[in-house]
Amino acid sequence: MQEENIVYIGSKPVMNYVLAVVTQMNSGESEVILKARGRAISRAVDVAEIARNRFIPDMDVENIEISTEEIIGNDGVSTNVSTIEIQLKKDD
Amino acid sequence: MQEENIVYIGSKPVMNYVLAVVTQMNSGESEVILKARGRAISRAVDVAEIARNRFIPDMDVENIEISTEEIIGNDGVSTNVSTIEIQLKKDD
Repeated sequence: MQEENIVYIGSKPVMNYVLAVVTQMNSGESEVILKARGRAISRAVDVAEIARNRFIPDMDVENIEISTEEIIGNDGVSTNVSTIEIQLKKDD
Repeated sequence: MQEENIVYIGSKPVMNYVLAVVTQMNSGESEVILKARGRAISRAVDVAEIARNRFIPDMDVENIEISTEEIIGNDGVSTNVSTIEIQLKKDD
């Protein structure tokens, strides 16, 4: 799994990320991983659902992992943030 | 799996739901399912992570499912909303 298979979900409109997934799949990738943290987690689920339901029907959720990351701010204070990884795979 | 094993995640503070999970597990349940829709999805992941990391170390994420629900408003207009189900299980 190379890094170009990863789509990082931030605060842009959902469709930007859906387009990124569709583009990667159309360029010959059979797997794409969505990564998100904090509030963007909900958006990552939206991206997976919209991509699958509207654009790539032969794609499925292969695996979902959740985890916690420690973020250390400029003031040295650490905060925990939840993360999600959604692995999408196209049938061969 | 009975209904009392399900914790619906809404807009209350995260710790309310963490407490619900801990209470269920302490009452003898070995499995709890978190269900959330839309923006509450991020909170559901927080609940799972905090419950596991801070309160119930022998609990693990057994499975995660994402899906789409159609909600029909009072005006008859339908909207799609993403959903998540996080299945938590305690080791025997």
